[in-house]
Amino acid sequence: MFILFISFIPVFLVQIMDNDFRLDELSQWGIKILQSPKKFCFGIDAVLLADYAKNSIRKNQKIFDLGTGTGIIPLLMCASNKDADYTAIEIQEESALMAQKSVELNNLQDKIKIIQGDIKDIPLKFPANCAKIVTSNPPYMINEHGKQNPSDCKAIARHEVLCNLEDVVKAASHLLASEGHFFMIHRPFRLSEIFVILTKYKLEPKRMRLVLPHADEEPNLVLIEAVKGARPRITVEKPLIVRNSDGSYTEEIDLIYGRKYIK
Amino acid sequence: MFILFISFIPVFLVQIMDNDFRLDELSQWGIKILQSPKKFCFGIDAVLLADYAKNSIRKNQKIFDLGTGTGIIPLLMCASNKDADYTAIEIQEESALMAQKSVELNNLQDKIKIIQGDIKDIPLKFPANCAKIVTSNPPYMINEHGKQNPSDCKAIARHEVLCNLEDVVKAASHLLASEGHFFMIHRPFRLSEIFVILTKYKLEPKRMRLVLPHADEEPNLVLIEAVKGARPRITVEKPLIVRNSDGSYTEEIDLIYGRKYIK
Repeated sequence: MFILFISFIPVFLVQIMDNDFRLDELSQWGIKILQSPKKFCFGIDAVLLADYAKNSIRKNQKIFDLGTGTGIIPLLMCASNKDADYTAIEIQEESALMAQKSVELNNLQDKIKIIQGDIKDIPLKFPANCAKIVTSNPPYMINEHGKQNPSDCKAIARHEVLCNLEDVVKAASHLLASEGHFFMIHRPFRLSEIFVILTKYKLEPKRMRLVLPHADEEPNLVLIEAVKGARPRITVEKPLIVRNSDGSYTEEIDLIYGRKYIK
Repeated sequence: MFILFISFIPVFLVQIMDNDFRLDELSQWGIKILQSPKKFCFGIDAVLLADYAKNSIRKNQKIFDLGTGTGIIPLLMCASNKDADYTAIEIQEESALMAQKSVELNNLQDKIKIIQGDIKDIPLKFPANCAKIVTSNPPYMINEHGKQNPSDCKAIARHEVLCNLEDVVKAASHLLASEGHFFMIHRPFRLSEIFVILTKYKLEPKRMRLVLPHADEEPNLVLIEAVKGARPRITVEKPLIVRNSDGSYTEEIDLIYGRKYIK
């Protein structure tokens, strides 16, 4: 069952609940976010995904983020596109609470709705074809290498403990209207499965970009845009390089992060 | 119907047939190849594909090349792996004749069999599971942009006039034994279709590499290795860059081509 969070939980109360919460000020985007370093903080994946999707957002569009964690993706997208209607789904109560708190701290309650719920229930709980954009930074790892603790927050965010790739794609396809866009970041080792499952759910991969830690290394992330009902033909973009050979961020990463933040 | 070429056609006779044939000596690989600059010469695609496949070849393995053109791929693979049994299929009579002539000029008749025939007939003409390796540099372009002339050699080699991606993959899957390897080079814009069709025919994509003309450009080729009956998980390798910013070939391309050939 989905629970819409409308309660206000003061920061000090959250801090009492667990000493390890932290409020981060991301001044380059003009947002604040509540995080839990011991449990889960956003990484470069979320930043790259929000950036990859942002130019497709139009005024008043309905946008979903599936498995939002602490809400970083809708917060970042909303920072550059305020005039859209964001709904973010997260199964873990604690993460959803933190996301809701961050939305309130940024006074974005009218823009971003945080909903605690299971991605697998989306086809039952939301009307079909209601969204123009869906984003997801889903768990990357297959739930087969060692038994995951189902109450471990990190395991749930990283391994397919509570939902798998097909659940996410199925939910995205249900939500998206014809020609709607699905944006996902994932690991390259899942690339073939990703394309097969996207195609199965009529989400045609139209754009992808490999992310390389350094120019001479294998990619460790892949950004994908799929369009519902589109014809096959994908634009494979030039790889995105994260760091220069001296270890500094590349100009493109600086631009994505907001240059003054990095330098 | 397949016709096995066993006839010997002297070079001068070929030259009489068409003034535009040319015998190229590829000294770095120790092979000669008959080509037709007006109709079709091999490009970097064939060289990269042969190189991508060569380390998987084992002694006495049965290897097929589908749509061999003038036979460059089996000739190159045989140059580095003589102790294997190569069969190369080509539908165009003129190309198959040239391929056969090149095989004879290299005294490789015992190693490479050139067969004129249609890839679509392979499941009827060859036993299933008979090969360990199949390679293909198929037509890249979908046969929909303008009507192709079905007698135009270049159109047949480049556009899906006489066979499409699915025909090639189906034939490869028929020929390959369990755990056999399929190597293909193609255009990145077909990547999603490629993965979907490979998976449909139980050829699991296990390795891929994008080829970039320059480090800061979009890829224009993709090398793919699929393994019959394997489990999903693909290694996406670091991109292969063809040229340095000054226009010279990169060291890796020099190595693939045989350094003394390039420099």
